Parts: sequence; C-alpha cells; structure tokens
Amino acid sequence: MPAVGTELVQDVAHLAHVEVRTPRMADTLEFLTAVFGLQESHRTGSSVYLRAWGDYYHHTLKVTEAATAGVEHVAWRAVSPPALERRVTALQQWGCGRGWLEGDTGHGPAYQFVDPAGHLMEIFYEVEWHEPRAAMRTRLRNQPHKRPIGGIGTRRIDHVNLLASDVTANRRFLEDCLGFRLREHIVHGEREIGAWLSVTPLVHDIAYMRDTSGADGRFHHLAYWVDDAGDLIRAADMLMEAGIRIEAGPAKHAITNGLFLYLYEPGGNRLELFTGGYLIFPPDWEPVTWTEDDRDVRVWWGGELPDSFFTYGTPAVEPVKAKNR
Amino acid sequence: MPAVGTELVQDVAHLAHVEVRTPRMADTLEFLTAVFGLQESHRTGSSVYLRAWGDYYHHTLKVTEAATAGVEHVAWRAVSPPALERRVTALQQWGCGRGWLEGDTGHGPAYQFVDPAGHLMEIFYEVEWHEPRAAMRTRLRNQPHKRPIGGIGTRRIDHVNLLASDVTANRRFLEDCLGFRLREHIVHGEREIGAWLSVTPLVHDIAYMRDTSGADGRFHHLAYWVDDAGDLIRAADMLMEAGIRIEAGPAKHAITNGLFLYLYEPGGNRLELFTGGYLIFPPDWEPVTWTEDDRDVRVWWGGELPDSFFTYGTPAVEPVKAKNR
Amino acid sequence: MPAVGTELVQDVAHLAHVEVRTPRMADTLEFLTAVFGLQESHRTGSSVYLRAWGDYYHHTLKVTEAATAGVEHVAWRAVSPPALERRVTALQQWGCGRGWLEGDTGHGPAYQFVDPAGHLMEIFYEVEWHEPRAAMRTRLRNQPHKRPIGGIGTRRIDHVNLLASDVTANRRFLEDCLGFRLREHIVHGEREIGAWLSVTPLVHDIAYMRDTSGADGRFHHLAYWVDDAGDLIRAADMLMEAGIRIEAGPAKHAITNGLFLYLYEPGGNRLELFTGGYLIFPPDWEPVTWTEDDRDVRVWWGGELPDSFFTYGTPAVEPVKAKNR
Amino acid sequence: MPAVGTELVQDVAHLAHVEVRTPRMADTLEFLTAVFGLQESHRTGSSVYLRAWGDYYHHTLKVTEAATAGVEHVAWRAVSPPALERRVTALQQWGCGRGWLEGDTGHGPAYQFVDPAGHLMEIFYEVEWHEPRAAMRTRLRNQPHKRPIGGIGTRRIDHVNLLASDVTANRRFLEDCLGFRLREHIVHGEREIGAWLSVTPLVHDIAYMRDTSGADGRFHHLAYWVDDAGDLIRAADMLMEAGIRIEAGPAKHAITNGLFLYLYEPGGNRLELFTGGYLIFPPDWEPVTWTEDDRDVRVWWGGELPDSFFTYGTPAVEPVKAKNR
Repeated sequence: MPAVGTELVQDVAHLAHVEVRTPRMADTLEFLTAVFGLQESHRTGSSVYLRAWGDYYHHTLKVTEAATAGVEHVAWRAVSPPALERRVTALQQWGCGRGWLEGDTGHGPAYQFVDPAGHLMEIFYEVEWHEPRAAMRTRLRNQPHKRPIGGIGTRRIDHVNLLASDVTANRRFLEDCLGFRLREHIVHGEREIGAWLSVTPLVHDIAYMRDTSGADGRFHHLAYWVDDAGDLIRAADMLMEAGIRIEAGPAKHAITNGLFLYLYEPGGNRLELFTGGYLIFPPDWEPVTWTEDDRDVRVWWGGELPDSFFTYGTPAVEPVKAKNR
Repeated sequence: MPAVGTELVQDVAHLAHVEVRTPRMADTLEFLTAVFGLQESHRTGSSVYLRAWGDYYHHTLKVTEAATAGVEHVAWRAVSPPALERRVTALQQWGCGRGWLEGDTGHGPAYQFVDPAGHLMEIFYEVEWHEPRAAMRTRLRNQPHKRPIGGIGTRRIDHVNLLASDVTANRRFLEDCLGFRLREHIVHGEREIGAWLSVTPLVHDIAYMRDTSGADGRFHHLAYWVDDAGDLIRAADMLMEAGIRIEAGPAKHAITNGLFLYLYEPGGNRLELFTGGYLIFPPDWEPVTWTEDDRDVRVWWGGELPDSFFTYGTPAVEPVKAKNR
Repeated sequence: MPAVGTELVQDVAHLAHVEVRTPRMADTLEFLTAVFGLQESHRTGSSVYLRAWGDYYHHTLKVTEAATAGVEHVAWRAVSPPALERRVTALQQWGCGRGWLEGDTGHGPAYQFVDPAGHLMEIFYEVEWHEPRAAMRTRLRNQPHKRPIGGIGTRRIDHVNLLASDVTANRRFLEDCLGFRLREHIVHGEREIGAWLSVTPLVHDIAYMRDTSGADGRFHHLAYWVDDAGDLIRAADMLMEAGIRIEAGPAKHAITNGLFLYLYEPGGNRLELFTGGYLIFPPDWEPVTWTEDDRDVRVWWGGELPDSFFTYGTPAVEPVKAKNR
Repeated sequence: MPAVGTELVQDVAHLAHVEVRTPRMADTLEFLTAVFGLQESHRTGSSVYLRAWGDYYHHTLKVTEAATAGVEHVAWRAVSPPALERRVTALQQWGCGRGWLEGDTGHGPAYQFVDPAGHLMEIFYEVEWHEPRAAMRTRLRNQPHKRPIGGIGTRRIDHVNLLASDVTANRRFLEDCLGFRLREHIVHGEREIGAWLSVTPLVHDIAYMRDTSGADGRFHHLAYWVDDAGDLIRAADMLMEAGIRIEAGPAKHAITNGLFLYLYEPGGNRLELFTGGYLIFPPDWEPVTWTEDDRDVRVWWGGELPDSFFTYGTPAVEPVKAKNR
C-alpha cells in the first residue's frame, strides 16, 4: 500500500479507459454506436475513440483493429503529478515497467507497465476533458453531455475484468504496487480463483478471474454502468432485436451485489451492462471471502451462468473444462 | 347501452386512431419520429400516418397540416360488421350521423358522426394490419414490430381526452349511443366536470373534461402507453434535453390511478405518456365519483397540476380562469 | 363460441378465484401473508380465503389443507345472470356438468363442471365485493384497499395454468363451451403442447400445457400481477432472503410477452409473479402459433427454463423425461 | 485542504451518523420503523439508535426526545487514528473545538466541534460494526443484513443538509478544516446561497443552504438512499397511504442530478429519499456553479419546489419570505 510518511494515500484515482482489439472493426463500431450507446470522439489510423454520455473525459474506450479480439491496454489516472511519480518509481522497483509513452489523443504522458499475467497497463495524470459540440451541451452543468435519445442508456465506464492463470499474484501486484484494496474474493480450498479490487468506493474498478485454459493475459469483459435495473431490461429487449448474443442476465451476482447483463460485441469481446452493486466507504473494510459453500447462491437470482462465462475470454483459445468455478 | 335481444353486447371494440392538426407539420413530425418514438407508415398530401412499435394496425395517429392545432377526428373500430351496422343505425336515430366515408389509407368504409361538443368521430370495421419491413420483423410472433433501439419507449395508443362545455351530455351520448361505460367522474355540486369512459377493461378509452373557455369541440390530449414508470422518468430526461416543454409529471393521478407525463408537441397539441392505471373486469362496475372533497389528493403525488392543464386546449382560446377543477 | 341470435357475446367475464390444496397449511399461509403479500379475508374449517390489495372481490385464492398439493377448483364469473344460465345449459349439453353448489363464502350459487383433463371448475354471477376495515380504506376511490407498506407488491390475480395430457381437447372445450378465445399456442409437428386463452383482453386468463407424466388434472401455477419489472427484482431479493426457492426468473417469455418469476410456496405449489404481457383489443385476433423453430427464443431473455418447469406439477408424480418442450 | 508533506490526503472517511431531536418520540419511531424502513439497534434513556438494512455500522440515526425538532449532532468517521489526530489539531487551531466525548453506544472516543452556523459535529475513528441476529444474517456476505420484506426500501444513509445564514463561511470551514471538496454551489450575484460538498465520490455528503429566517444552526434534512426511481415511486404510494406529508417529489434536481422525495416525519423533521445523482472520480473536479440563469431548470422535472422547501427547517421559526432561491 502506498505511503507518504506514515500515512497511506490513494495515488491511483480511477479507471480512465480501456483499449480493446477487434477483428471486425466496422461491425464493432456499428454496434457500439448504434446499439450500445457510445459516441465516437475521434478516429485515427486503425483506432476509434469512444465514450458514454456520462463519461467526463475525451474517451473511455479505444477500439483498435487487429487480427484477434482482446484487450490492448488498461489505463489508470493518477490523483496528481507527484502521485504519478510515486507509482512510476514503485513500478520500476517492481520490475514491470515498460517506459514512458508520449501520450495519446485525449491524455498526456503515460507510463506503461504489465501485470504478472501480461496485460499491458498505463498510468497518467494529464487528461483531456470532453467538450461537447453545441447541440449536445446540456443545461445540467454537472453533466458532460446531453443524454441521447437513442441507444441503450449506457452512462459511464465502470470496471474491467481480466483473466489470469494466477489470480493471487495479480491482485497482490495491484495491492502492493498500485494501492488497490481487495474488496471480495473467491477462495476454493487454498486457491484464490477470483478477486475484486478498487481504489474508489466502487466494489471493483478491476477484477481478476482464474483462466483455466493455460493461456494468460486474456480479457474477460469491460463493463459500462446503466442507471437501474429497468435499463438492463430494456437493453435486453433491444439487444435481442439487434441480433446480439446475450450470454447471461439480466440477473444478480452475489459477489459485488451487482445486476448484470453480459453480451458479445460483433468482434467477439464480452461486454457487460452493470448497475446496482454497493459502495464501500469504511476505511477498514475487511475483504469478503466466498468459498465453495456459496456456490448455490453465487448468482443470487436470474439463472446459472453458462459454461462459456468460465471458459471464454479473448483472444479465444480451445476451451478447457472449467474445474474451479 | 346496446342490446341484442335481452342481452347487452359490446359493439365498439376499441380506440383505433386519432387525427390531429398541426400548424407546424415539419417540426411536429420531427418530434414525433425522432423523440416521441413513433414511426411513419404512410404520407399523402398534407397528412402523415404514424404508429408506435406495439400498435397492430397501419396507424394510430394521423397528422394533418392545418392553420391551427386541434383534433380532426377520433376513430373507433367496431367488433364486427353487424356491430358496425347496429351502431350506424343508433347514430342515425340519435341524429348526429354525417354519413359514410369511403375509407382512408389503413381502413375501410367509416361512418362519420359528431359528439354533442362537435368533435368529429368515425367508426369502421375493416382495417389494415401493420406489415413491418423485413428488417423490423421481430421473432416475437405476438408483436407487430421490433422494439426500436432507444427513444422514448412509446408502445401503443392508449386513450384520447376531449374538452366539452357540457361533460354530461357527451358522456351520455357515448353511453347511450355507443355502449361506453362510465368508469369514473368528477362531480362538483350538481355539475359533472370530468368523465372517464371505456368499452375495454382499460379505465378509459376516452375522457371528457369541462371546457370553461366557452369554446366547444376542443382537444385536451392524446395518450400513448409506455411500459412502466421507469420509461416515464427516462422520457422526462430525454424531453428536457430535446427542449420539449413538459407541462406536468412524471406524477400519479388519483383518477384512473395512472402515472402521467404531459408535454406539448411543437404544433401546440398536448400529448401524454401514460402507464399504470388499472383494469376493470367486473361486469357490474359502479362508476367512481370524485367530489370537491378529493381535491387535495387528485394528484396522488408528484406536485400540483398547473393552471394550463385546466385552461389550455387546442385550438387555443383566450384562457378564462378555471373555476371548477 | 357463444352466440345470441347471430351475434357472438362474452358470457364469461373473468377469472374470479382459484382454490389450491396444501399439505403444509401453516407454512403456506405464513408465506402467503408475510412474504407473498396476500391478506386473509376469512377462515373456516380447513380453508383460508385470501386476496391481494388490488383485488376487488372477497377473495381470489382459497387455500385448503389436504394430503397433497394441487388445484381444487378454478372459478369464473359470468357477465350476467342470463349469461350464467346460457353457460350452464351449454355445459350440461356438453355433458361435463356436476351440478349446482349453493355458494361459498364470498360468492353466490355456482355451477360446477370439469374440463376434459379433470380439473374441477365453477361459474357464478353473484359475488361479494371486498370491504376493507376502516384503517385500510384508501382515499383512492377506485382502489379496493390501501397498498400495504412493503412486501412483494402482489396486486391482483392474473391467470391460472393447468397441465393436461391432451392440450387440444381442453382448449377446444374452453372455446366451444365457454367462449374463450385462443390467443397463442405452441404446436410441435401435429401436436399442440401449450395453449393460452382468454375472455378478457389479457393475453391469457388460463393456459394449458402438456403433461408428459401420464397423469391428468394437475396444476402448473397460479399467477399474481405486480406493477412492473422493478417489483419482480425486489421480489427476487425478498424471496431469496426468505429462503423461498425461485424456480426461474426474473426473465421474459416470448409467449405472452410476459415478465415472470416462478417460485414454490412451502406446500409445493408453483406460483408466478407476472407483469408486462400485452393486451389484445382487436376482435379478429389470429392465434399466434409457435413452433419448434422458436425454441431458441422461447425465453426471450433471462436464462433457460429448468427441466422442472416442464415436468413438475402438483400433485407431484414421478417425473418422466419431457420430450416436447 | 489537509496535507501530509506536500501531498493532499483524505482524513475524513464519510458521514457516520446523524442525531435528530423529536418532540413526538413514539410517533417518530413508529414511522421510522414501520414505514420508513429503519431498524432499531439500541435504546437508552431518551434516545433510540437506528439503521437501514444496508448500513454497515451499529447505527446511522440516533433519535432523541426533545422539546423541539432539529439536528443534535452530525458525526464523521476519520480514515485512521492519525487522521483523527490531525483533524482534532486543525479543529483546535481553528478554535471551534468542544473537546472529547468518551464515546457513545456504537462508537469510540469522539471529538466534538461546531461549524460556524453552530451545528454540533463530531469526528471519531473507532466504530462498532453491525452484528445481525441470526435470522437476519444474509448469505450475501458483502451485505450487513437481510433486505427486509416490509417498509420502504431505505438502504443506507446518504447525506445531511443544514441551514446556515452564511453558506460561504460554513463551506470554507469544511474545506479548510476537514478537507471537504466543494462539488456544486449556487451563487446569486455575489452571494453563495447553497453549497454541496463531499469527501467521498458522492456528489454530496453534506450541503449547506441559506437560512433566510435570521436563525442559525437549523436542520434542513437527512437523506437515505434507495436503489432506484422505482423505489421512490413505490415509497410515494406507501407514504400517501400512511398519511405522511410528501413535501415534493418524486422528481429530479438539476443540482446533484439526484432523484428525490421529501417528507416530514411526525416529529416535524424533513427526511429525504434519494437515489441517482452521480459519482465524482476525477481528482481535479472543478466545482459547478449554478446562477440565477438556471432557475427554470433547477428542478429538472417533476414540478416546482414549494415555498416550504426554502423556508421550513427545524426547529421551525416564523417564516420570512425567501428572496434568494
């Protein structure tokens, strides 16, 4: 946990954006803008930058054309320039640093690093705030953009979920090197098979789930927030009519207390529409441990999660039968 | 009440469509299709035919360009050809018949008549069912059209509300000549100032409210159904961002038990988004009478109705201070 | 279809109540009143009469102690005394009449009969309307009772679903002898395996589904209406905390377009919380036919229905593997 | 803003509880437990301790019998013992400290102080977490208590709103002495008439609004969170049936983007049911300034706020006509 003098401090502010790869750029974009409700901020070469109507920055999703689906990088914003420096030093000491990136559309210099599972991440401080065009400027001075008439009511980025062959190694990296706090985890016997962590009061900004395929560095899903359960239900109707495969939900997880709907975008990446959950304000929150005994209530209601939820990630690999859900 | 032998029968099936006039055709249509969620079925001369995604017929709204806003006609479907004949005979005997219309896009021969307040109405049996184009055909075999992505979730026509200087005369006409049943009414002293009637189990297919302006034959509003209160709330956000004036709501009426949102379309006509209410299945329902004593709960919750609700109708006239709300 | 002269008429008004048997009377009642949200109207001998807050009559559910769970009878209200007479004559001619019952708490003389599957039914006209005690009288003059504070928002009886070895025989009986209209059905090859019928604009007042167990006269479920999807979600949370087994849902059927949640009351009978659906106003509605091709969308979203949904009914029998879902 | 070395730190974790006074103890408690949905944790002398089902600590509301309604104290939890020490030192330097309280049921030693308007506050670190009795222990390991079947779905304490003759002095005190961040405020000309501040990502943990009565130290309201807009609507129905006066809502504020319902508990204090809003994650959030120009959209939808909202606080004083809404 980061410290200044004798005091713990929060150096990582929040999840800033995620870059995903798609082998079907046109279809992915058509889906994201016409159905999922994101808006295009910028386009350059093989990448398109997108945001939801309630996101305050230039973008929260970057989509890049590639041979296979998956996550290209996960970006965190630091709380201040000194906080950024402190985290860079820590990452360098840990030995996982990759060096500075000059910046990208929408943000300033970013320090790149990899988690133990091999997912590329970056951290930066300077960021470009969203400037809506005149017609989309709202009289709600606290909101960055008019709520659109069309699309699912996707409001803001919420969290990212990554697959890792060793969950514990990855969550310890986030705790020790970046100051994340473990909020909940699943432990089967001695093995931690899922961990939910955050730097904010959200129950998770990021989660790791165990990849039983033998691969590492894969992507499970990126979640956007909708305002309530009614939005999930409306979204389910709209997704069905758009011919999009809903993998599971609307339903409720016991873990995170979240209401969820999982779907596959045309490029093959899993996305989540998420609402509910709970906020963690106590500074001395004890991580919640779920065990094999909780299996029957892990989906609190709404049907069981299908096998694909435990085996499918991007890029796809030959599925191996999941043993430790 | 219509009778066959000694038995009461239902000859009028339901509200089929309403034709409204607008002095701002382009703006009205833009609003109805881009915000309010209706779809264009057909266009001819100065009229455009529209329907909501859950309406089964060719159209439920006809919009016609005119010098002033208001209602052009209200159309009812008969339950059968003999039922149509019986009603035509009754209307002729009553002396309010205007004769047969050959038909219109979307339906067959219609018999025209006027209510005591002078609103033009028609009744027909033959109707054209909606045929969606291939891309909008849904796998939900019981639904006429795919639910659109986004937009206010306007699902189907619900009811029409007309202004009349003499509420009692008009509701008696509907009861005696067309077999409507009085469901609820407001009586202040000796005077009936509002009446809600239906031929279906809906608490109202039509309502009359007292016009205190001295005018007659004016239009109060046309209501479309949305699926739940969450839709009203989302609609309120979208309407505000679209610059549409919300007159009242989301809130709840005691009368009809309905959740409502009233707005003005750009042509000046009042529209309602409606949900909730209740269904009346008992054949011997006693009309509910509201009196002056109920004034404090007439809006069950959600703020008071503004004066305009009691004085404004289309076409607009110089408002006279309402005395009998 | 009933006729008076040359005209079709509706003689059956609506579903009035259902009597179910329970082998665990105390637990069933505790659940129904403390969790499910019904209120006790009356108690006599081995039976208790219950209603939801929005039911207008004395009761909509009668629970009777018995050795096994199941349905004891299904009661319909006629639209008028002559309508009742006409139906009794038709039932006698059909040969399924059982004779007159003097009445029961809450209603007058009832004519008893059995459907081809052996379910006992009755039809009556005279009924006792609910009279709330003073503290539960609402200022909403159109509502029979105050909405209770909290609880699952169970509002009114909606429909009943019965199992039958021969679906077609039973639905034809309802059509020909009682004037029900077929709204939707599932036909696999030549065999009708489910039929949804109504006398009201509700998409179903009653359904028959094929019993593949070899038994006949069994009960699938009784459904109560809640106002919206949010109620289903709240109910799911409450049922889980009350230790009640949710069989399926909250989710959405393609058939009936209904949002559902199925649960088992402690006596073993399946109950449904239902909302959504759609209303059928056209007098010439063509029954919707679902085939084997629709299997993948039969649950529109929310997970698959478990095997128990297709095999379990009350009284329970040795399940036989379902072949024709 | 608190600093450790060169770095800003968060010393105040969140709003822990509020103590309100009531002149009608029995009625206030009956309402809070039977309708509002709180549970009694403890009772001693003239005080009762309460919490909502989703509150993690022993209590979030203490109700104390007194001659007049109002707020007795507002309690904040520190993030750590050193953070507590740092804030005590700062408060002493500011000259508003009142000294240490040994503790109270549910928490350890607390340092008392007053804001410029004279509201008593306290800050502590040690706290007692809620231990549900066995029957109310939920299998949701991340939740402190089963969701109850009864009552409005009040989930957790959200924020407190205080009246002050000088808004600016009070919000600066919170910023400078306790590290709160100004999120939004209303400025009319030169005068700040309302300020919304937080230490968490909630848009406000506390607000000050201008008291135009000449009094100081008064209470505007305490807000509890419900999960969504549907809960507000259900609550409105339940409150009306319980005879509780709803002052305004369900409706939506532009400020805070919150959905609200204000009511008066029987003792005369205003309570709010709150949901929606938005979360502030950027570390460099610029306070949002609302001016006279925004008056027409200050209630985003749902009717105007009544005069009482701007003049009534507890204890009640002779209302002075509000000039600066």
